Amino acid sequence: MKLLEDRILADGKVFPGEVLKVGGFLNHLVDDSLLEEIGKEIHALFGDKNVTKLMTIEASGIAIACYAARHFHAPVLFAKKSKTSNISSDCYTAEVKSYTHGNVNTVFVEKEYLRAEDRVLIIDDFLAHGEALRGLISLVHQAGATLVGCAAAIEKGYQGGGDGLRAEGYDVKSLAIIEKMSDDGTIVFREQ
Amino acid sequence: MKLLEDRILADGKVFPGEVLKVGGFLNHLVDDSLLEEIGKEIHALFGDKNVTKLMTIEASGIAIACYAARHFHAPVLFAKKSKTSNISSDCYTAEVKSYTHGNVNTVFVEKEYLRAEDRVLIIDDFLAHGEALRGLISLVHQAGATLVGCAAAIEKGYQGGGDGLRAEGYDVKSLAIIEKMSDDGTIVFREQ
Repeated sequence: MKLLEDRILADGKVFPGEVLKVGGFLNHLVDDSLLEEIGKEIHALFGDKNVTKLMTIEASGIAIACYAARHFHAPVLFAKKSKTSNISSDCYTAEVKSYTHGNVNTVFVEKEYLRAEDRVLIIDDFLAHGEALRGLISLVHQAGATLVGCAAAIEKGYQGGGDGLRAEGYDVKSLAIIEKMSDDGTIVFREQ
Repeated sequence: MKLLEDRILADGKVFPGEVLKVGGFLNHLVDDSLLEEIGKEIHALFGDKNVTKLMTIEASGIAIACYAARHFHAPVLFAKKSKTSNISSDCYTAEVKSYTHGNVNTVFVEKEYLRAEDRVLIIDDFLAHGEALRGLISLVHQAGATLVGCAAAIEKGYQGGGDGLRAEGYDVKSLAIIEKMSDDGTIVFREQ
């Protein structure tokens, strides 16, 4: 998606250790007009798959999933990271390691919100090692639901998470795939 | 907002200890069509205030803010609860006590995303004791920005957070205000 690649080049910031900061438009301050286009593009990629539920993980996946939901006319289920007093104990759970947070979270969805008859599209802002997607995929499998595919806004292709999932047969599509990122700020995208 | 009140009566669940669970349509599984209407209603209430930024707090406020953003054509800034490797150290911070999580979070926004010239509408899913709103209001004040008002989907009126803020002069509007909630499931809304 050229619009997103151009925005990454214009406003993304590269920090040492292969850290790409896109907080100015994607996952801290969310640019409404860009997200509108991202939502449309995700629907263009998966709109013919009879998706009944969009699934993401709190927090930064929620915005993208909501902008896509308008086009799918499907509800958004977001996996949670911490239990509150109003959460049922009847949950599907998965362990998700976060490299940016430097910790492991148990993420969960309440069983009543994810059904065997659901056709689920998983959405997230970033795909790097693939840990979050694998956690969400596990929740879908636990429910006996059908996984239609996974859509990420930005994939760090060189970290291998996306290609690993594709090699296992999952339909994983990312709107911008970074093939190479250097500490001097150079970013090279994969041709798609 | 009658649509939301009716939905709370139909699908909300009341648990002992004045816990209202709306995970089936608002803050775990997000009902796309309901959120569309909530977004429109928030715009109807604050659309003439020249809002330049919608501000919320992760995670469940993000969905509502994104559905409202479409109408304001303004970006969504969400305050974060945990620092990641890609967050600048130059942040505004506030302490927020959560009754549902039973903890205190330091929430923050990066300074570069909240400017003195911003006109900010704060949005959240729930307003109870008002702790989250007070934290967000503090961030707005720290930035020297203008606070236009606060919009919540559901307010627990009997917990006093909303009325306390109104008494201090803040323009706080909630789409459904619960005046009374009993363990037997009875819910009484405030006339608006």
